[in-house]
Amino acid sequence: MSANFRSDNETPVADAIMEAILEANHGTAWAYADDDWSNQLDQAFSELFRTQATVVPVSTGTVANSIALATVTPPWGSVFCHSGAHIYGDECGAPEFYGNGLRLVPINGGHAKVTPDALERAVRANEGHGVHSYKPSALSLTQATEGGTIYSIDEVRALCDSAHAIGMNTHMDGARFGNAIASLGCHPAEVTVEAGIDMLSFGASKNGCMAAEALVIFNQPQWRETAERLRKRSGHLLSKMRYVSAQLLAYIENDLWLEMARHANRQAAKFAEAVENHAEANLEYPVDANEVFVKWTKEGFDHLISQDIQFQLWPGRDDLARFVFGHSTSDEETELLIKCIH
Amino acid sequence: MSANFRSDNETPVADAIMEAILEANHGTAWAYADDDWSNQLDQAFSELFRTQATVVPVSTGTVANSIALATVTPPWGSVFCHSGAHIYGDECGAPEFYGNGLRLVPINGGHAKVTPDALERAVRANEGHGVHSYKPSALSLTQATEGGTIYSIDEVRALCDSAHAIGMNTHMDGARFGNAIASLGCHPAEVTVEAGIDMLSFGASKNGCMAAEALVIFNQPQWRETAERLRKRSGHLLSKMRYVSAQLLAYIENDLWLEMARHANRQAAKFAEAVENHAEANLEYPVDANEVFVKWTKEGFDHLISQDIQFQLWPGRDDLARFVFGHSTSDEETELLIKCIH
Amino acid sequence: MSANFRSDNETPVADAIMEAILEANHGTAWAYADDDWSNQLDQAFSELFRTQATVVPVSTGTVANSIALATVTPPWGSVFCHSGAHIYGDECGAPEFYGNGLRLVPINGGHAKVTPDALERAVRANEGHGVHSYKPSALSLTQATEGGTIYSIDEVRALCDSAHAIGMNTHMDGARFGNAIASLGCHPAEVTVEAGIDMLSFGASKNGCMAAEALVIFNQPQWRETAERLRKRSGHLLSKMRYVSAQLLAYIENDLWLEMARHANRQAAKFAEAVENHAEANLEYPVDANEVFVKWTKEGFDHLISQDIQFQLWPGRDDLARFVFGHSTSDEETELLIKCIH
Amino acid sequence: MSANFRSDNETPVADAIMEAILEANHGTAWAYADDDWSNQLDQAFSELFRTQATVVPVSTGTVANSIALATVTPPWGSVFCHSGAHIYGDECGAPEFYGNGLRLVPINGGHAKVTPDALERAVRANEGHGVHSYKPSALSLTQATEGGTIYSIDEVRALCDSAHAIGMNTHMDGARFGNAIASLGCHPAEVTVEAGIDMLSFGASKNGCMAAEALVIFNQPQWRETAERLRKRSGHLLSKMRYVSAQLLAYIENDLWLEMARHANRQAAKFAEAVENHAEANLEYPVDANEVFVKWTKEGFDHLISQDIQFQLWPGRDDLARFVFGHSTSDEETELLIKCIH
Repeated sequence: MSANFRSDNETPVADAIMEAILEANHGTAWAYADDDWSNQLDQAFSELFRTQATVVPVSTGTVANSIALATVTPPWGSVFCHSGAHIYGDECGAPEFYGNGLRLVPINGGHAKVTPDALERAVRANEGHGVHSYKPSALSLTQATEGGTIYSIDEVRALCDSAHAIGMNTHMDGARFGNAIASLGCHPAEVTVEAGIDMLSFGASKNGCMAAEALVIFNQPQWRETAERLRKRSGHLLSKMRYVSAQLLAYIENDLWLEMARHANRQAAKFAEAVENHAEANLEYPVDANEVFVKWTKEGFDHLISQDIQFQLWPGRDDLARFVFGHSTSDEETELLIKCIH
Repeated sequence: MSANFRSDNETPVADAIMEAILEANHGTAWAYADDDWSNQLDQAFSELFRTQATVVPVSTGTVANSIALATVTPPWGSVFCHSGAHIYGDECGAPEFYGNGLRLVPINGGHAKVTPDALERAVRANEGHGVHSYKPSALSLTQATEGGTIYSIDEVRALCDSAHAIGMNTHMDGARFGNAIASLGCHPAEVTVEAGIDMLSFGASKNGCMAAEALVIFNQPQWRETAERLRKRSGHLLSKMRYVSAQLLAYIENDLWLEMARHANRQAAKFAEAVENHAEANLEYPVDANEVFVKWTKEGFDHLISQDIQFQLWPGRDDLARFVFGHSTSDEETELLIKCIH
Repeated sequence: MSANFRSDNETPVADAIMEAILEANHGTAWAYADDDWSNQLDQAFSELFRTQATVVPVSTGTVANSIALATVTPPWGSVFCHSGAHIYGDECGAPEFYGNGLRLVPINGGHAKVTPDALERAVRANEGHGVHSYKPSALSLTQATEGGTIYSIDEVRALCDSAHAIGMNTHMDGARFGNAIASLGCHPAEVTVEAGIDMLSFGASKNGCMAAEALVIFNQPQWRETAERLRKRSGHLLSKMRYVSAQLLAYIENDLWLEMARHANRQAAKFAEAVENHAEANLEYPVDANEVFVKWTKEGFDHLISQDIQFQLWPGRDDLARFVFGHSTSDEETELLIKCIH
Repeated sequence: MSANFRSDNETPVADAIMEAILEANHGTAWAYADDDWSNQLDQAFSELFRTQATVVPVSTGTVANSIALATVTPPWGSVFCHSGAHIYGDECGAPEFYGNGLRLVPINGGHAKVTPDALERAVRANEGHGVHSYKPSALSLTQATEGGTIYSIDEVRALCDSAHAIGMNTHMDGARFGNAIASLGCHPAEVTVEAGIDMLSFGASKNGCMAAEALVIFNQPQWRETAERLRKRSGHLLSKMRYVSAQLLAYIENDLWLEMARHANRQAAKFAEAVENHAEANLEYPVDANEVFVKWTKEGFDHLISQDIQFQLWPGRDDLARFVFGHSTSDEETELLIKCIH
């Protein structure tokens, strides 16, 4: 038996999502996001976030992030984010491409989080002098973070307040937003729009969907035109968008998304507990969601590999590894992993 | 009963394709196009086109076209295409976006086709003077054309020869490539790589797939890096690419794609025959594939609308309409349409 | 003796302009357009155009045009211009570069002019359908035109009215604006801001300056930030801008610019008259300013070349040539030319 | 009496340079850098650097830097530079604009210098994983640095060797290159092409010219087309380039450039000595060239201001100021400054 903890990107599509796709597959439907499913999104997400929401469905988190940032940042604007953020290190410059050379400014910070102090220092060091420098324009937070930790509602609010105070807009990269909400136990609006987030990349692909994400714009319907132009112009306006939108609707219906995220988080928590009780291995970060970063010996990790356990050794490190738990991770797989580390 | 002939973009996913998606939905798979399905594409398309093929799977024709053109055209290069081409009028400048301000030069021509003479005149009028002007860099042909006509093998070869003679690369937008091959009855290589086409946007979404297209590069493996960088950088590298690649593999297996295209073409041919025999209505173009452009009276079209027949009145015209037939168009629907025009 | 009528781009700097440069060359001055000369420009041009003017001094007409268009056109916007316009055929895509892939739509028209009818047809043919198409965003007129003709005040007003009526902004490429005003004999405001022009590339380099142009924005001070950001970001904010601004101030002082332009126009008029009276040669366009396009025989042009007369045979034509007269063209040179064509 | 030490950007044009401009101002000359002066540049700089040099004259250092970097860096490539580099903090993203969203990676380092160790760490931290990350593509060094220090020949060679070893190209921003060579006392080739520099932004505007810089490409003539296309496309191909090229030729003739730089450096050295002997004030960096960074009290700086001494308080600091000495700084001015700090 083997088990794969490399990434939730590698999980299959959840059955309930696939059923929604099959149900959408009858007869013809208007193309280019003018179908019955896509036309429900604004309403459905407005309810989910209990505010006016403008929804732009797309296929990947990278494009959702890039459109969001390019919508509120001029080419001579800068976007502040954590140095470990996906937009900074894993998107090959997609935000810079969509934003025609905007600049990302990376901020270091423990537990993969930005703090208000660090943000303020970074802004001060980069705001420069008038026309000669980039203009601070946006803040992007990742929730759950790349370290598997979670910003509290208060942390998000403090950061958004700092950003808004100097005229910046705020974005949340929610590639693992479901895991964050499942962990926080709060209403999804509380840690987003109500805490000051202007735009959310609402991720679904990692948590049971096939290729479905939603850029959700809160209370700024005037941003729709730019966002939709960028979607079209980048080739992301699918002719058969109904299949994406049907996924999104099924995903948020009856809290399916939270149920799947809770499952993943539970598996991670079980493994985290085992690591905490381990003689040699240690947790690198608190385990708030579905990712567990483990510090251990090379021999330890080699042993896991020999047992057909798949995970990611962190680039450039042989004493750190990441284990990700998904909606499809079974109890047996988690137990196998726990058994193997002992 | 109603029937929809607005666009093959509005058709559902074919059963065989959906089955392939379902079959791919087991267990985990490497993300980002490193899965077992994606890894088969180069081989499968090399066989299909009986030459070395580099395949870049994506979700839309717009991105396939844009990556293709941006890969061979510098920002100061121009791309020649028919004035009715999708890349010119229907992609909101996606080629210009991916190509950082490259220029499309539209060429008029009967039957929605470019001729070698017209191409030569357009190049001469636009090649300009050294560094002051755009540099002619690529030719893009649409097959089947936006008028539902088809370039013969000899026509493609003559145009590619003209383009290559002055150092331009050649691209074919094959959004309806299946319909073209089904109509020509030739080997797919004959009207592409063997006639001088360097890159093909191999369309599948209009002909039974969900959101699956392939950029196929012939005999130029060194273009892969740029193409794949552009795909990633634009957010088109799906984490779960297996579902796109599984569609593409099923689509070309056992000539499924040609079977579906033949069906659509047959429906179009039946309707075209009816129009030809009609007292008042006329065909605007020869009907070579699955699109029928009809010149008729406003009253005639109004009658169809009153009968719940859906089709596209051509923008700015009330005497011209387009009827598109797809893999899912039933004999009954076509017969209903024929009945209604009489 | 030889004489050069190839282009007013080849003329030297006028003495009065050089004196202004020398006068500016004392002591230190604030860098980056914050010097005493640059700080006078808004006021000086507001007086010249008897309205509120925002002036952005630069070194070339290409950058003035490009910043102007990029300031009012989104990347998915289109700019309408004559097919012979400098921005379309002679700037290697600078507007597309500054505008991140905006599109220029060329319009044919006699006497190198756009007409309201032709503009309307072009807009209708290109406005397309929503997010799928470029959005008509700006009209750019060249005054004097590339054919050496001039738009009348009424012609400019009619075109600007058409443009504004559909929400487009208007730009005038005034590379030879001095020649146009000298010919029209009107106030410079009458054929620009008062006729509906929103932005003017005020050319000076061709008419006696070294490398000095001004982007003049009328009554839209809120466009300054974008224009100045683009100037900096493209490397056009000279540290020693005082030398450009000193040229501009001297150029418009005491109507020096008009005096120089009148001189050039007079030389052109003399030659035009000689061509009109010529047995074989003919004028291609009315001669309104300082350019004369002559249709003649290859033998005729060859004869001129043998007499050391320099001019430009039109690209791709051996029966058409352009003769340009500048501020420095002497009576002797013009007389030599006239003698040589007989 | 007042004295201005704010920036060498504020100095006037040197007499010898102005004479060269006046000498070039006779008769017509071919436009667009095809004049007799521009045509001498390759030869003149090939001699100056005793190797094959391709010269692209332009008006600003920002455009020279941006074209250089965009010529060797794909949009998905990264450029490594010191965190204090002009390209990073003072060009409003010009490199990102010309390079269509390339990324600058800032490296911290004492004395405003990059070290091979710091470079290696930065590359390792940013090279990432294949298509997901920017590709390390170029190293840019500033000589003299933004801190007024100078890289030794060995330091440049070691950094270039590191860069070349991993396939990166190398660029030197020589905005104050004359000051560096005057200080090093070496042949200009030794610390550039012979130490591994591929491209040099040869600055002249700060050291006596009006608006003249040269992008010098060493032994890579095939880069000319891209560089010249970018120059045209950005509006930097002056029609009357003769005036820029005449400046450049005069600047390097008979070591004028070094003579002017030596003068500036001498003034800086005199002031630096006074600071070293000062009871309270201190030098922030070694003074290798023409810039002196002084740490002192707010009261001290206020006193200077009250004496009409102009200099730059460092942004965000009231205990640090920069004093720059130029070709036109007189002995009297320097002595006044020295007197005032005591």
